[in-house]
Amino acid sequence: MKNNSYFPLKFENDYLIFIDQTKLPLQENYISTDDYNRIAEAIERLEIRGAPLIGIAAAYACALAFKNKNEKDDNYFNKVYNRLASTRPTAVNLFYALKEIEKVYSSIDDINIYEYLLLTAHKIFSDEEKFSEKIAKNGLNIFLKRSNVLTHCNTGALATAGFGTAFAIVKNAFDHQLINHVYVDETRPLLQGLRLTAFELEKNEIPFTVQTDSSAAVLMQEGKIDLVITGADRIALNGDSANKIGTYNLAILCNFHNIPFYIAAPSTTIDRTIATGAEIAIEFRSSKELLFVGDKQIGKESYHCFCPAFDVTPSHLIRGIITEEGVFSFPYNFIR
Amino acid sequence: MKNNSYFPLKFENDYLIFIDQTKLPLQENYISTDDYNRIAEAIERLEIRGAPLIGIAAAYACALAFKNKNEKDDNYFNKVYNRLASTRPTAVNLFYALKEIEKVYSSIDDINIYEYLLLTAHKIFSDEEKFSEKIAKNGLNIFLKRSNVLTHCNTGALATAGFGTAFAIVKNAFDHQLINHVYVDETRPLLQGLRLTAFELEKNEIPFTVQTDSSAAVLMQEGKIDLVITGADRIALNGDSANKIGTYNLAILCNFHNIPFYIAAPSTTIDRTIATGAEIAIEFRSSKELLFVGDKQIGKESYHCFCPAFDVTPSHLIRGIITEEGVFSFPYNFIR
Repeated sequence: MKNNSYFPLKFENDYLIFIDQTKLPLQENYISTDDYNRIAEAIERLEIRGAPLIGIAAAYACALAFKNKNEKDDNYFNKVYNRLASTRPTAVNLFYALKEIEKVYSSIDDINIYEYLLLTAHKIFSDEEKFSEKIAKNGLNIFLKRSNVLTHCNTGALATAGFGTAFAIVKNAFDHQLINHVYVDETRPLLQGLRLTAFELEKNEIPFTVQTDSSAAVLMQEGKIDLVITGADRIALNGDSANKIGTYNLAILCNFHNIPFYIAAPSTTIDRTIATGAEIAIEFRSSKELLFVGDKQIGKESYHCFCPAFDVTPSHLIRGIITEEGVFSFPYNFIR
Repeated sequence: MKNNSYFPLKFENDYLIFIDQTKLPLQENYISTDDYNRIAEAIERLEIRGAPLIGIAAAYACALAFKNKNEKDDNYFNKVYNRLASTRPTAVNLFYALKEIEKVYSSIDDINIYEYLLLTAHKIFSDEEKFSEKIAKNGLNIFLKRSNVLTHCNTGALATAGFGTAFAIVKNAFDHQLINHVYVDETRPLLQGLRLTAFELEKNEIPFTVQTDSSAAVLMQEGKIDLVITGADRIALNGDSANKIGTYNLAILCNFHNIPFYIAAPSTTIDRTIATGAEIAIEFRSSKELLFVGDKQIGKESYHCFCPAFDVTPSHLIRGIITEEGVFSFPYNFIR
């Protein structure tokens, strides 16, 4: 392992070791625990974040809850399940992971419970890694030349497994000499670009520059951006895509400057129950996310703020959607 | 004066009283001084900011330097002049104000120096107020109905005199029942929207909401914005306009959503020496403005940042430019 390596979490010697993402990029603190409740707290405090990573951590937490227990105990299992389910109530991957764990718990006998649950957690982890690898491979197809890429928010190892989604494409393209420079939106209000993506680019020795979200337009005006890739949180059957607030803004800038705009996400992000983005309910966050930077207050608490967590980019602005299955182009007709 | 009133600076009983803008909006501290060097420090520390306001403050500082002096002293005058000229070397209004003061100093005899310089400072102040009033009046013409307006950065009393430029239009339109709601871009990196414009809207009892700069696109997508007005720092003869970083982004969003985008500025902002925006050199700021919020560090100091202070909006994206002389429309042909 090289000196500059990092990992979001790993399971080693019957302990879960994870990096405290709230301290990044200024401090790299790893926390080691076999206490499921400490893992639940880590998810609540955003020490562990990113939808797929939350699911993986919750699965390991359930397994660790049975590390020193030799028998099934449904009340105890439900207590553990509910503790983890209560951490981030809107995270789809969290519930997917907990349900997989529950299925296995229900199906096994009264022996080797810890080992079975651990195998399930390992499988959830490795499935995510495989998605990431395939997305990274498929993403090479969008590069016509050595390019300057702009990205938004964090889509790397700190959010997922492997090298993530859009970040995995950037990493793979860089390894194939297809990346000249990466421009990173700081991504207000929570600054995932400045805090996390910059950290991951530095660790991977990929040259990068950070800019305020509203400066992306100037970079494009100056001809410095060849393509834009972001992740997605939810994709409708027609390709309309919800992603971190600021993504729709970027897609409009790309449209104006005739720069291709791509989305990268595993196919599990496609919500087969919704036809268009109009059916995606946007989560609104507390004004505090805007009025405070960490513990530093910058505006009065009485100020009314507009704080959508996501925005929805209409599919006609999206040049391609890259999943583990391939690169899809507009018009999108994903199958229900 | 009402309880909720505020003022950026005023001259009273032979003292300059100014609000410390670095503490806004969380603290309203007024500082009173008759020491020209303290005023120079206030400009350096951004306690007093906004190009026209800096000019006004510097003029009063020169006058106060002669408050207790009954005779001309060219060496002393030059010392005062140079101290103030060194505070913000790129501020055009600062040098305009200092040159006006110098003209008067050179032309007068050895009596009533303080009084003459004070009259000059008062005139610079009241000239700016008149610009503001006329811009506010002309700006009413762009309102076709009671509207939701979005603005960027700070263009109010805290930056200028009177009620400012774009802000003066908002204030006047509100008084004429032509404003329903104001949406304020927080304006990264220095957050003048969140810190200063929100403060001024609150003081004027105008209903407002603050959003991150990249959220403006969603507000427009949802049909919540009827028009956008910003200030300008420099306007070319063809109407291309330099303004706070993020303005060009906004103009593109307006173009995409078919929302009129306006610039408001005194005609002194038109640079009669340049034909187009291509001749405007963009000032780049320290990475620290992005990597720190006040004294709170959010990114590593080693990170490379793209930090333009301004961007240039091409004139075809600007529906109108409002000056004290009237409302100009595209195509612009200002006279050299």
